[in-house]
Amino acid sequence: MPPNYRSFRNSVPWLIIFLEAVFIILFYFLFSGDGASGSNISYPAFQDVNHMVIFGFGFFLAFLKRYSFSSTGFNLLIIVLGVQCSILMESLLVFFLQRAEEGGLKSITKAAVSMTAVVISSGAVLGKTNPMQLIVMTVVEIIVFHVSRWINKIFLQVPDNISMMHVHLFGAYFGLAVSSRFSEPSLRSEKNASTPKSELLSMLGTLFLWVFWPSFNSVLAVDRSKAIYNTYFALAASAVTAFALSVLTTKDGKLRMTHIHSAALAGGVTVGYAAHSIEYPWIAMILGLLASVITILGSFCLQRCLNPALKIHDASGVHFTFGLPGALGALAQVVLLTVKAETFVLLFSLGYLVMINIGAFCLTISVALITGFITG
Amino acid sequence: MPPNYRSFRNSVPWLIIFLEAVFIILFYFLFSGDGASGSNISYPAFQDVNHMVIFGFGFFLAFLKRYSFSSTGFNLLIIVLGVQCSILMESLLVFFLQRAEEGGLKSITKAAVSMTAVVISSGAVLGKTNPMQLIVMTVVEIIVFHVSRWINKIFLQVPDNISMMHVHLFGAYFGLAVSSRFSEPSLRSEKNASTPKSELLSMLGTLFLWVFWPSFNSVLAVDRSKAIYNTYFALAASAVTAFALSVLTTKDGKLRMTHIHSAALAGGVTVGYAAHSIEYPWIAMILGLLASVITILGSFCLQRCLNPALKIHDASGVHFTFGLPGALGALAQVVLLTVKAETFVLLFSLGYLVMINIGAFCLTISVALITGFITG
Amino acid sequence: MPPNYRSFRNSVPWLIIFLEAVFIILFYFLFSGDGASGSNISYPAFQDVNHMVIFGFGFFLAFLKRYSFSSTGFNLLIIVLGVQCSILMESLLVFFLQRAEEGGLKSITKAAVSMTAVVISSGAVLGKTNPMQLIVMTVVEIIVFHVSRWINKIFLQVPDNISMMHVHLFGAYFGLAVSSRFSEPSLRSEKNASTPKSELLSMLGTLFLWVFWPSFNSVLAVDRSKAIYNTYFALAASAVTAFALSVLTTKDGKLRMTHIHSAALAGGVTVGYAAHSIEYPWIAMILGLLASVITILGSFCLQRCLNPALKIHDASGVHFTFGLPGALGALAQVVLLTVKAETFVLLFSLGYLVMINIGAFCLTISVALITGFITG
Repeated sequence: MPPNYRSFRNSVPWLIIFLEAVFIILFYFLFSGDGASGSNISYPAFQDVNHMVIFGFGFFLAFLKRYSFSSTGFNLLIIVLGVQCSILMESLLVFFLQRAEEGGLKSITKAAVSMTAVVISSGAVLGKTNPMQLIVMTVVEIIVFHVSRWINKIFLQVPDNISMMHVHLFGAYFGLAVSSRFSEPSLRSEKNASTPKSELLSMLGTLFLWVFWPSFNSVLAVDRSKAIYNTYFALAASAVTAFALSVLTTKDGKLRMTHIHSAALAGGVTVGYAAHSIEYPWIAMILGLLASVITILGSFCLQRCLNPALKIHDASGVHFTFGLPGALGALAQVVLLTVKAETFVLLFSLGYLVMINIGAFCLTISVALITGFITG
Repeated sequence: MPPNYRSFRNSVPWLIIFLEAVFIILFYFLFSGDGASGSNISYPAFQDVNHMVIFGFGFFLAFLKRYSFSSTGFNLLIIVLGVQCSILMESLLVFFLQRAEEGGLKSITKAAVSMTAVVISSGAVLGKTNPMQLIVMTVVEIIVFHVSRWINKIFLQVPDNISMMHVHLFGAYFGLAVSSRFSEPSLRSEKNASTPKSELLSMLGTLFLWVFWPSFNSVLAVDRSKAIYNTYFALAASAVTAFALSVLTTKDGKLRMTHIHSAALAGGVTVGYAAHSIEYPWIAMILGLLASVITILGSFCLQRCLNPALKIHDASGVHFTFGLPGALGALAQVVLLTVKAETFVLLFSLGYLVMINIGAFCLTISVALITGFITG
Repeated sequence: MPPNYRSFRNSVPWLIIFLEAVFIILFYFLFSGDGASGSNISYPAFQDVNHMVIFGFGFFLAFLKRYSFSSTGFNLLIIVLGVQCSILMESLLVFFLQRAEEGGLKSITKAAVSMTAVVISSGAVLGKTNPMQLIVMTVVEIIVFHVSRWINKIFLQVPDNISMMHVHLFGAYFGLAVSSRFSEPSLRSEKNASTPKSELLSMLGTLFLWVFWPSFNSVLAVDRSKAIYNTYFALAASAVTAFALSVLTTKDGKLRMTHIHSAALAGGVTVGYAAHSIEYPWIAMILGLLASVITILGSFCLQRCLNPALKIHDASGVHFTFGLPGALGALAQVVLLTVKAETFVLLFSLGYLVMINIGAFCLTISVALITGFITG
C-alpha cells in the first residue's frame, strides 16, 4: 500500500528525531553522569552485557528469512533508543525520590539489562509490526517496566538485582500480549521460513548469548564469582539436556535448531534469580536440567494446544524460551529461600509477585490496544 | 595479464619475507619489551582494541562482493605487518630521543590504534590496488603517520592521546590522496556491487566497531570512565540520527545500509578528541547528532558534486565516514576548550593543527605519487 | 540405513541424559565449588578462554560444506560435556590426593583449556564419525588426558602450566590415531568440498582463535604480561610468513585458505610452552616464523607422501596445524632452557616427554579400537 508506505516514510524519521531531541533536553536537566564514581561495575563487565544485548539478541532473532538483515539493524536502533529512555526513567526516579545518583557506567549497564525485556518482546511480535510500532512499543515498555520495578522495590522491598531479573518474565508476557493484538500474518509460509543461512546466524546469536549469560547474571549480583559459576553450570546442564530432548521429541529423530536455541539458554534464565545464592553447583545443574525440560516440553505442547486456542502467534517462541524458565526460576528462588528458613516474608512476597505479574499483564494488554490504535 | 600476475607471485612473498626479516633484526636491536612494566593499560582494554581493529575493520570493509573474503584476510596481513612496523618506529624514536621505554602491552596497543589510519586508507583504495601496493602503502603510511605525530608532539606540544586521535583524519585524507592517483576502475558494476550477504557481514563489522568504540576512545585517555560514557552517548545519539536521516534523504524512503554504517560510527569519531574532557553527556549527544548529520549530508552532496570534479572514487566512503567527523571533532574540541577559557594557547595550536593537516596532505600526495611509480 | 538411524535415535539421547545424571551425582559428592576463592584467574581471562573454545574452534572447523551447521552445534555439546567431565576428573584427583581444591572459576578455566585437546581431535575425525562416537570419544579422551597429565605431574615434576600445554600435541595425535581406525570416507568429493561461504566462517573462526590465543597462553602462566606479548609477536610473525609461503608453495600462486588458517595459528601453538619464559620478543618472532614454515612445508609434504602410506585421512589438517608446531614448541622450550644452563634435569624430562607421547599413542590406538567396536 503506497499511501501507508508514504505515511511510514513521513512519520518514522520525525518520530525518531523528536524522541532524540526530547532525550537530549531531558538529559540536560536530569543526568549529570558522574554520581558515585566509585561504582563497582568494571568496564569489562559492562562491555560483556553490551555485547550480549547487541550481538546476542541481534543474531538470535535473525532466523526468519526476510528479517535477517533488518532485525540486526532495528535491534541496534531499538537498543540505543531504549537505553537512553531507560537511563532517563532511572534519573527521573532519582530526581523525585532524592536518592543518590549512580555512576555513568552503572546507569548504562542497568539500562542495557532492562532493554532485554524490550528485545524479548520484539522477538514475539517479529514480522507483524512496522518500525513505527516497534519504536512506540520500546518507549512504552521501558516506562512500564521501570514503573513495575519501582512498585516492586518500594512496596515489596525486592532487592535491586532480583527485581532486575524480572526482565525475562516481563519481556515475554508483554510481548505475547502485544502479539495477541495483531492478526495472524497471512503470508506465514513465505516470511517465516527459515533458511540454513539464517539458522546459522541464529546459532551465532545463541552462542553469543550462551557465552555472555554468566556476565549478565553476575553484573548486578553481590557475590559475583558464585553467580558466574552457578550460571555456567546451569547453562552447561541445560545445553546437554537440550540436545538429548530435541532428538527424543521430534518424530524423525533429528535435532531441531529452535529447540537447541531455546533450551540451551533456559538454564541461564532460570538460574538468574538465585545465581548468587545457590550454595552448590549441583543445585544449579538440576535447575538447568529442569529448565531445559520445561522449555522443550512447553514448545511441544504449547505450540499445539494453547496457541491456537488463544490465537497467539509466537514467532520466536519467546513464551517457552523466556517466559516459562523465568517462572520456574522465580519459583526455584522461593523454594531455595524456604529451605534456608527465611520463609515467612518471602511467601508474602511471592503472593505479591504473582499479583504484580497479573498487574503487568493488564497494563500490557491496554498498552497493546493503544499501540494498535495509534498505528492502525 | 599473466606476466603481471607472475611478477605478483614472484615479488609479493619475497617482499613479505624480506620485511619480516628486517623487522626481526630491528626488533633484536631496538625493542626489549619490558620497559615500564607497570603500565596503566590493562589486558582487557588491549584486547578490546585488538578485536576492534581485526574484526571490526575486517568485516566493515567486507561489503564489496568480490572482496568479502580477501579483505578479511589481507586486513589481517596488513595489521600484523603494520603493528610490527609501528612498534619499531616508536622504539626508534625512543632510541633517538632517549625517552623511557613503554611496556610491551602499551606499545602494542598504541601500534594497534595507529593501524586504524592504514586500515581506513585501505578502505579508500579497496578494489583498485594489488596486494603489493597495499603492503608498500602500509609501511609508508605508518612511517609518515609517526613522523607527523612526532612533529605534533615536539613542536606543538599536543598531548599524546590527542595526537593519536588524528588517526581518523590522517587515514581518511591519506587514503583519498592515494585513491585519486589510481584510475577509475572500469568494471565498477561487477566488482563494487554489494550483495545482501556481504551487507550482513558489513553490518557485523559495524556492530563490532560500534561496540568497541568506547574502548578505543578510552584506552589512552586519562579519565577513562568519563571517556567511556561520553563515547557511548555520542554513539547512541548518532545511531538514532542515522536511522532517521537515512530514511529522509533517500528517494524511496528506504534505509540505505551504507548510511547506517557510516553515520552510526561518526559520533564515535567526532567525540574521540574530547571524550575525556566533556563535562555532561548531553554535549556528547549533541556532538554525536551533528556528526551523524554531517556524515549523511556529506555522503549526499559529496558523492554527487565533489567526487566527479576531483575524480576521486571513494569506494567505502571513508571521506564522510572518517574525514568529515574527524574535522568536526577537532573543531568541537577547540570550541569546548575555548568555552573553558584556556583559549589563547589553543587558538595558536589550532592554527598549527590546520597547518599540520595541510602538511600531512602534501606528504600524502607525494607519497601517493611514489607508490604509484613503484607499483606502476 | 534406517535401522542404523533408529538405533542412533534410541541411543544418543539416553546416553547424553545418562552422562548428565552421572555428572550431577558426582558433582554432588565431589565438587563444592568454592575452594580457594582468591584464585588468580580474573573473570575476563576466563571469558576469553571460553570464547576461544566455543567460537574459535566452532567456526574453525566449520569449513566443510555439509558440516557447517552441525559442527558449531556439536562443538557446543562436546564442550559442555567435556568441561563437566574434566572438572570431575580434576576433583577426583583432588579427592584422592588430598590436595587443596581450586576455586570454581579456575576449575572451569582449566577444564576449558583441557577441552582444546578433544576439539582438536574431533577436527581430525570430522565427517567420519556419528555423534554417538564423538561423545564416547570426548569422555574417553578427557579421562586419558587427565591421567597423562597426572603422570607428567607426579613422576616428572612438570609444572602445571607446561603440562597443560600438551593439549595440542595430545589432541592432534589422539585424533590422528582415532582417525586412522576409520575407513576413508567414500563420498569425499561431496562431503569434504568447501564453499566460499564455509571458508568465510572458517576464517571467522581463525580470527577468533588468533585474537584470543594470547589469553589462552597466558591464563595459567606465572608472568602473564610477558606471555601475552610474546604470544602476540609469535602470532604476528607466523601470520606474515603464512601469507608469503602460501603464495610460494601453490602452483598457481594463489593464497590457499587452509594454509593461512593453519599457519597463522602455528606460532601460537609453538610459543605456548615457553611464552612466559622468553626474554626478548625477537626470539618469539623467530619461533613463530619457524612454526609457520614447518606447518606449510608439512602440509605440502605430508599430505602427498605420508598420509597415503599410513592411510590417514586428516580432514582438517590437525597434524600439521597442531601436531608439528606442538612438537617444535616442546623442542624450543628445551633448547631455551638449555641455553639458560639448567640443562640436566630437563634433558631427563625430555626423554620422559617423548616416552609419554609414545605412551599416549599406544593408549590412543587402543582407545580408538574400543570406540570402533562399541559403535560398530
